[in-house]
Amino acid sequence: MPEYKAPLRDMRFLIDNVFDFHGHYAALGATDASPDMVNAILEEGAKFCENVLSPLNRSGDEEGCHFDNGVVTTPRGFKEAFAQYVEGGWHGVAADPAYGGQGLPQSLGLVLSEMIGSSNTSWGMYPGLTHGAMSAIHAHGTAEQKDIFLGKLTAGEWTGTMCLTEAHCGTDLGLIKTRAVPQADGSYAVTGSKIFISAGEHDMSANIIHLVLAKLPDAPAGTKGISLFIVPKFHADSGERNAVNCGAIEHKMGIKASATCVLNFDGAKGFLIGEANKGLNCMFTMMNHARLGTGMQGLCNGEASFQGAIKYANDRLQMRSLTGAKAPDKAADPIIVHPDVRRMLLTMKAFNEGNRALTYFTAQLLDTAHLSSDAGQRQEAEDLLAFLTPICKAFMTDTGLEVTNHGMQVFGGHGYIREWGMEQLARDARIAPIYEGTNGIQALDLLGRKVLGSQGKLLRGFTKIVHKFCAANAEHAQLKSYVAQLNQLNQQWGELTSQVGMAAMKNPDEVGAAAVDYLMYSGYIILAYLWLRMAIAAQGHGDAEFAKAKLATCEFYFKRLLPRTATHRAAVEAGSECLMSLSAAAFMLE
Amino acid sequence: MPEYKAPLRDMRFLIDNVFDFHGHYAALGATDASPDMVNAILEEGAKFCENVLSPLNRSGDEEGCHFDNGVVTTPRGFKEAFAQYVEGGWHGVAADPAYGGQGLPQSLGLVLSEMIGSSNTSWGMYPGLTHGAMSAIHAHGTAEQKDIFLGKLTAGEWTGTMCLTEAHCGTDLGLIKTRAVPQADGSYAVTGSKIFISAGEHDMSANIIHLVLAKLPDAPAGTKGISLFIVPKFHADSGERNAVNCGAIEHKMGIKASATCVLNFDGAKGFLIGEANKGLNCMFTMMNHARLGTGMQGLCNGEASFQGAIKYANDRLQMRSLTGAKAPDKAADPIIVHPDVRRMLLTMKAFNEGNRALTYFTAQLLDTAHLSSDAGQRQEAEDLLAFLTPICKAFMTDTGLEVTNHGMQVFGGHGYIREWGMEQLARDARIAPIYEGTNGIQALDLLGRKVLGSQGKLLRGFTKIVHKFCAANAEHAQLKSYVAQLNQLNQQWGELTSQVGMAAMKNPDEVGAAAVDYLMYSGYIILAYLWLRMAIAAQGHGDAEFAKAKLATCEFYFKRLLPRTATHRAAVEAGSECLMSLSAAAFMLE
Repeated sequence: MPEYKAPLRDMRFLIDNVFDFHGHYAALGATDASPDMVNAILEEGAKFCENVLSPLNRSGDEEGCHFDNGVVTTPRGFKEAFAQYVEGGWHGVAADPAYGGQGLPQSLGLVLSEMIGSSNTSWGMYPGLTHGAMSAIHAHGTAEQKDIFLGKLTAGEWTGTMCLTEAHCGTDLGLIKTRAVPQADGSYAVTGSKIFISAGEHDMSANIIHLVLAKLPDAPAGTKGISLFIVPKFHADSGERNAVNCGAIEHKMGIKASATCVLNFDGAKGFLIGEANKGLNCMFTMMNHARLGTGMQGLCNGEASFQGAIKYANDRLQMRSLTGAKAPDKAADPIIVHPDVRRMLLTMKAFNEGNRALTYFTAQLLDTAHLSSDAGQRQEAEDLLAFLTPICKAFMTDTGLEVTNHGMQVFGGHGYIREWGMEQLARDARIAPIYEGTNGIQALDLLGRKVLGSQGKLLRGFTKIVHKFCAANAEHAQLKSYVAQLNQLNQQWGELTSQVGMAAMKNPDEVGAAAVDYLMYSGYIILAYLWLRMAIAAQGHGDAEFAKAKLATCEFYFKRLLPRTATHRAAVEAGSECLMSLSAAAFMLE
Repeated sequence: MPEYKAPLRDMRFLIDNVFDFHGHYAALGATDASPDMVNAILEEGAKFCENVLSPLNRSGDEEGCHFDNGVVTTPRGFKEAFAQYVEGGWHGVAADPAYGGQGLPQSLGLVLSEMIGSSNTSWGMYPGLTHGAMSAIHAHGTAEQKDIFLGKLTAGEWTGTMCLTEAHCGTDLGLIKTRAVPQADGSYAVTGSKIFISAGEHDMSANIIHLVLAKLPDAPAGTKGISLFIVPKFHADSGERNAVNCGAIEHKMGIKASATCVLNFDGAKGFLIGEANKGLNCMFTMMNHARLGTGMQGLCNGEASFQGAIKYANDRLQMRSLTGAKAPDKAADPIIVHPDVRRMLLTMKAFNEGNRALTYFTAQLLDTAHLSSDAGQRQEAEDLLAFLTPICKAFMTDTGLEVTNHGMQVFGGHGYIREWGMEQLARDARIAPIYEGTNGIQALDLLGRKVLGSQGKLLRGFTKIVHKFCAANAEHAQLKSYVAQLNQLNQQWGELTSQVGMAAMKNPDEVGAAAVDYLMYSGYIILAYLWLRMAIAAQGHGDAEFAKAKLATCEFYFKRLLPRTATHRAAVEAGSECLMSLSAAAFMLE
């Protein structure tokens, strides 16, 4: 298993040189997020992830979770690591101080989350889901609900879940069958079966607080009739067991140490949170955060995979360089001398560092949306977040999967063997394009709801930033040709969008036909912008080798990865007809 | 698990309408391969694969192989299935009648292999490796060696292996350490340790015949000092156990029911096969076949995945079509109405059917190379085979992996759950781009050895075919715009090759830098040619729906997949500098 080392140099580069986190925090009045505090989070967070979580990653995969008559046991060491994490105060880093949190900006929470996810994706699911539940309760709960639940959740005594999916519906939540019947005491009796509930049952906390989508008896049909309920495993007052039980855990391709549960609610006592029939809206308010977190899993598994691959490529001796032996004293050259191995490593590096920049860029927007005192600024940040979130989720997870596959390939046959840990990363990475809204759904959200739904306004909010950047750097000595290339793509982006918009007015299927390629096309342009920002910022970096590497990786990105936009554009332009002309029957075989 | 149904309609379409197998067999004098015989292989082979192998696929994955003190047990039912397979005469379909085979053309063997690999990839490894060993012995063994080994191998009483890789070398076989010391009786004492030996030890046959690469004491260094030895598990004469033992089996990402063994040779008695120090050449003579077989695994897993996905897409109800309800009587529309689901399904269909056409096209060349009485024709077929083999291996396995990933994605969360079987196909498919020479190595073989090594001659052998085809169909009523597009790409292919060739004369790293993208670029053009052939041939097909589907899928291929050539071309043209400028140290993190 690759031993995780937090990429602190790159993180500090983004924090200090590219995105000026200190100025950003100062402007938002987030005085607690001082340079010393940021440094402490980086240093101590890295130690915890490297020393506690990383060593449990492979054993967690091998052991998996165990289910026995409703009881779920997490792999050896998971429970203890969670206790240490809580003890270290990590769980409440970005939580509300009113309920025991440290109140640091969301962006710092995400910096920490990357390290957690890179060292142990499965383990990270437990606190991750709890943070999701905390956000929902914080945003929509009554004062009493917050008092009852948020303190214990922040303290890590209790953990949380989000219960959406049922066997017959995932994307189409309007179809859910779970019912909530009002009781005389103001509570609800929740009955139904939920599947794919991460952290739905486990042994890491004293109680589990489920946030459950269900329908009231008189609810309108479809998504407008869904409400959200808090259903604790143990009643908060009496401590007695509620009528919710884990019926099974799933056997999955990866994230095997994350318990994915079937939860049966049998008239369980629940409490309405937020307005009746507005449950989906409540869920959506925390989606930005959750989707960014899921997007980051692409980065996390990609980073871990790169760390394994780069080490192996330097150690493994195989064949001689075609331009003459590079390690003549050894039996063969290390494989990093071979251009095709470098192609894979640079692809990994360019995506990881680009995706990290995208994460940090977006994380700052989260801060601004939460903390700015300027309503206009908050709205601008919200708009950019709405635009970027589906791209973060889908682009980062698709490219993350590609990265982990390159990582395996660098190892050759050893990449396929479990003991090396590289294949686990590819298996763990494979869920991220699926859950939290499939990447296809993200793409529809981006193109249909966000871009076309705003008549292009949300797109223009971003292209304007790129346009300004290109104008400001049009004469950059080393990079002007790349700036020009970005500027041209930025214009083309708008044109392509108008084209699809026109076509969609005549035929709504044009949106679905274009969506995934449109999202990937957008992601490549956004990363190009971020890569240029990094290449420029790196010129002021004290470490000349580091600066050179950033420049070289930027160049690689523009020459070898950005051309993929041409293919995605062509696919978008191909339109829906070639997708829709076949009858469903004609797809079949016999 | 998707229940496998052999795609007989598509197979017959290729055999009858596209490639005229009957005329092909008649021209080669392969009279045994009569239409009735072909039909029997298709019908009966399908039954065996559907009824015997397919039901063992998922249980084989769950059980895996068991290792206990040198003894390997295959999953429940594997041994019995092998006995049935041998009993049915399937093992010797394409084997030499002089040793008990049926002597049918290789192409028929491959038609059968596809069905085997699609229904159970892991199981298919055991006969597959045996066929490899049989080819090597047939091509290079002495008459005595053939007499001793080929009969039993053809009969399936014994099975075979190919022992190349050692812990420190896979690609770079010049580094092998296994030694063979001549003995007074003319045999050799073979000592060393081999890893990743598929079917190296198991319970399916009475004896296992290992073909082992080793070095003689006086061997020249590197690949020119490697010899090939036959090392039986039990001595053919005495039946006593030889000094070869299985030290362990690997725990892998997939193909878990295929025993991947560490084999320890401890002065084992072996017999030189072929000339001393020419062992690698002996291996290479069977590589074409083995690599085509591995390439087919991309098709096999892709086909199985498509069968699962198409069924699910018709069954699963989720959301309404944006152009109005298509199944208003149901709770939601089947997901096949959604354009993005169709994008995934059509991508799968276009690659699978294209890859099947590529397999059949190449299989005919194998026949011609083996059976033609015309030396010129044989040479032409050999040249085309040399050119196409690395493309079959790498392009088909890379696209096969993509296909199985789409298959998972169509299933949403259920795609990640083991019981549905879709994730197994993606895990099983993941080995194919790695073994039998990584796809990076295939690409070097194609561009460096085959294309540039022949001064473009091997490429021109193929582009000439495409050129003629385009000339003949330039005025095709429905397809002429695609024909023109293919014709243009075909010219560009030559130009791009010259460009790389020029660059490579100055800098050999240009080959490695371009190779993988060049191979994929080539693969997409070849599939475009084959898709047009299919679309044209389909017009004469009796089933109008089938013909329409071929035309629509061809159109989809040209509009949505072929544009990927633009990206690959740009990557080729980017050259090596952006890969080579970074120092190995600068890749590292801290």
